[in-house]
Amino acid sequence: MGKSLTRRDVDYSKWYNELVVKADLAENSAVRGCMTIKPYGYAIWEKIQAELDKKFKETGHQNAYFPLLVPKHLFEAEETNAEGFAKECAVVTHYRLKNDEDNPGKLKVDETAKLEEELIIRPTSEALIWNTFKSWIQSYRDLPLKINQWANVMRWEMRTRLFLRTAEFLWQEGHTAHITKEEAIEEAELMNGIYADFTEKFMAIPVIKGLKTESERFAGADETYCIEALMQDGKALQAGTSHFLGQNFAKAFDVKYTGKDGKQDYVWATSWGVSTRLMGALIMTHSDDNGLVLPPNLAPYQVVIVPIFKNDEQFAEISKVALQIKSDLQNKNISVKFDDRDTHKPGWKFAQHEMQGVPLRIAIGPKDLEKGTVELARRDTLEKSFVNQADLTETIKEKLEEIQNHLFDKALKYRDEHITEVNTYEEFKEILESKGGFISAHWDGSKETEEQIKNETKATIRCIPEHTDNQSGECIITGQASQKRVLFAKAY
Amino acid sequence: MGKSLTRRDVDYSKWYNELVVKADLAENSAVRGCMTIKPYGYAIWEKIQAELDKKFKETGHQNAYFPLLVPKHLFEAEETNAEGFAKECAVVTHYRLKNDEDNPGKLKVDETAKLEEELIIRPTSEALIWNTFKSWIQSYRDLPLKINQWANVMRWEMRTRLFLRTAEFLWQEGHTAHITKEEAIEEAELMNGIYADFTEKFMAIPVIKGLKTESERFAGADETYCIEALMQDGKALQAGTSHFLGQNFAKAFDVKYTGKDGKQDYVWATSWGVSTRLMGALIMTHSDDNGLVLPPNLAPYQVVIVPIFKNDEQFAEISKVALQIKSDLQNKNISVKFDDRDTHKPGWKFAQHEMQGVPLRIAIGPKDLEKGTVELARRDTLEKSFVNQADLTETIKEKLEEIQNHLFDKALKYRDEHITEVNTYEEFKEILESKGGFISAHWDGSKETEEQIKNETKATIRCIPEHTDNQSGECIITGQASQKRVLFAKAY
Repeated sequence: MGKSLTRRDVDYSKWYNELVVKADLAENSAVRGCMTIKPYGYAIWEKIQAELDKKFKETGHQNAYFPLLVPKHLFEAEETNAEGFAKECAVVTHYRLKNDEDNPGKLKVDETAKLEEELIIRPTSEALIWNTFKSWIQSYRDLPLKINQWANVMRWEMRTRLFLRTAEFLWQEGHTAHITKEEAIEEAELMNGIYADFTEKFMAIPVIKGLKTESERFAGADETYCIEALMQDGKALQAGTSHFLGQNFAKAFDVKYTGKDGKQDYVWATSWGVSTRLMGALIMTHSDDNGLVLPPNLAPYQVVIVPIFKNDEQFAEISKVALQIKSDLQNKNISVKFDDRDTHKPGWKFAQHEMQGVPLRIAIGPKDLEKGTVELARRDTLEKSFVNQADLTETIKEKLEEIQNHLFDKALKYRDEHITEVNTYEEFKEILESKGGFISAHWDGSKETEEQIKNETKATIRCIPEHTDNQSGECIITGQASQKRVLFAKAY
Repeated sequence: MGKSLTRRDVDYSKWYNELVVKADLAENSAVRGCMTIKPYGYAIWEKIQAELDKKFKETGHQNAYFPLLVPKHLFEAEETNAEGFAKECAVVTHYRLKNDEDNPGKLKVDETAKLEEELIIRPTSEALIWNTFKSWIQSYRDLPLKINQWANVMRWEMRTRLFLRTAEFLWQEGHTAHITKEEAIEEAELMNGIYADFTEKFMAIPVIKGLKTESERFAGADETYCIEALMQDGKALQAGTSHFLGQNFAKAFDVKYTGKDGKQDYVWATSWGVSTRLMGALIMTHSDDNGLVLPPNLAPYQVVIVPIFKNDEQFAEISKVALQIKSDLQNKNISVKFDDRDTHKPGWKFAQHEMQGVPLRIAIGPKDLEKGTVELARRDTLEKSFVNQADLTETIKEKLEEIQNHLFDKALKYRDEHITEVNTYEEFKEILESKGGFISAHWDGSKETEEQIKNETKATIRCIPEHTDNQSGECIITGQASQKRVLFAKAY
């Protein structure tokens, strides 16, 4: 199909861009920085959504929908948050077009339809939602309030890349309100844990849970929990964040509840989100020089059946077997596509399904009919084998599980091999350039040191990991005492 | 709970507005004309989405996602479409805010960040999607192309009402491309049929399928199919539309395919959509003076269990029974909520569940424990009965089916009683004022007559119904020959 990719070791970035387009996941649109998510890519996103949505509901969250546009005066109310996003805001100023008298058939903005107050396309919805929570929360009976929204958001980024950084993206944003600080912190941790569990078990992407430093925190948060994944090129990717917002938004929007004792107090808040960025993490964790590799949990179809035939009679016989196999597999909740298109040859189909990462491919030819076998090919290892038709369903069930586990194990091994402890800045810079990955180093806890390292090496503190023992040491820059190593990396 | 509604016969419009808010479906937001869809309302919308999405996929459609913003030059390309929506367009002109030096802590639009070309928030996506289809469609192998998108859209309406007419709303928009005109028309008819089937069988809302007149057509369509429902106040509501777009967009965006014979030609198109407006239709078809009435298919929970107790011991015993009932019902795929809140009294809970339209309510008190019964209340008829716990699951299964059917039958009877044939304009005006509903009348087929009737009576032609015999007659205005009656009504 003429779709070969640039090799990863030649140009990783080019490989990624080509893969996204050639695997039919997404493409750039006519709108600067905004992508079109194509049906195959969207089908994967739907699987991500469905699984996360189930987990949110199981933990007592409810979906709702809040407006796309935020009036400027509300956007401004929580100043740290506003300042953090002000430079990336798409602004609606008018609400009508009119005919352009100078250019028949063309339209222009109707200057008489200027808004009294500008409206911002939401870069995130805290402001609008907390303005709403003010009327939803009166008493302790209304708490905890645990809301989630699936929505599009817009951040006017200067340099964009499909899935990883786009002006518009799709995401979910959870927003909760609680009576106590402890309960809010618990919620923020719970949701970060759900994200970690989801990316590891469902997407087969190993992640490190931890806390952001103050300078990497969400604008308006008191604490940001995160999950950090490692891509094949040694760069980190922030896959999800969960924020403990303290009482910042409650105070900015005056959201108080009356307790059982009749006293009024501000509520405590969290917000948390993952986005279509996860698609980027998925691609860069598992895929290879032949194209996309998908964990079976996320594959739009887990098995594809390609018939190989020379004439209509053969096609009819193969189809009978193929449809039986399809039905047997579907009965076991395995999703299958029978690729019976007569517009493309088998070789073309093989290449397409490989590029699109279908976990298992079954090929059936006339000889297979004679022998009662099929050829089964694994996308992750590219291994092929012949399997008796009678054993097929069981074999496929096992292989799908194997693939899901194998992808996680492989990614975990790579990730673990790419966490390097260093004790000097020289070592730090050397490892960063030669090997990449996460660098575990002592840091004195100051913004200045963090900033210096960032300016000199482009590496940032990805997180203060949750699961590491405290260990005394000295900051690699200042030599001051440090109680814990943090993880540095260059990042997407 | 102090939530009584204005009666429908006193002020239908006020009743509707109060119900939407008091049943916790939606509310006005801080953004002019934009609503917040609350969790209970959104849960109903999710059921609508899930069922429609299944039907779209079963008929070979795939979901995708296209950008929110449309560059002005693309928006202009199909002139009829552009003209139809130009007056309702929210326009993005800038992409950055900056600190307002004169007002510390406030922000203002950064005039140096003015877009070279204005971006329109999509009022509908034909322009952007057809510009994309241009690169997706090369050959007959790429056809038919059948895409659907779930998205938010924005039309800057001057007078807005929750769900019925809001500046931002949620919808799905299908966009398809075909080789032949016949196939495109078939698709437009198929989707209108799917809408009709869905509203009738799933939402219990009877609809009339038909064609719009030229002046009521979608801007840019050659033909608009529609489903029209009748609300309890005698006004019609357009519940869904499906458009045959001819080659209008293919020509505007130069979308051609190469056929098997090597010849190039423009493709044929359809688009079709339903929106959160369906929530308005749902409310105004079934609800009563006590609040929302929901068909079981759409109820976030179909059964609610309310315990009635005086002390903890009673509560513990009742809970045991309630949880067993809940589990039995869930095993039969019936959704149940056990309302065990200790923050509200049973009477308050009864009123809330009635207002929110929960189809069946079970109450369990100490006497029920003794007798092995429960009290079962139907929301649609308000009938109460005592049912043996042993028979409960079976009884509830039957009642839910009964309610679903009863709501449809009741609405159908009302609708059919409110289609009145008239043969003179006097009669037309008399029926319109005294009885309302659909008026079936002969019309000469001219825009002028349609316009005159609209100006004089506010009634519009809702549709040229699909299922009526041709019948000769004379236009009620001009007396000219007519071959078929059309349906007029005042409409939402």
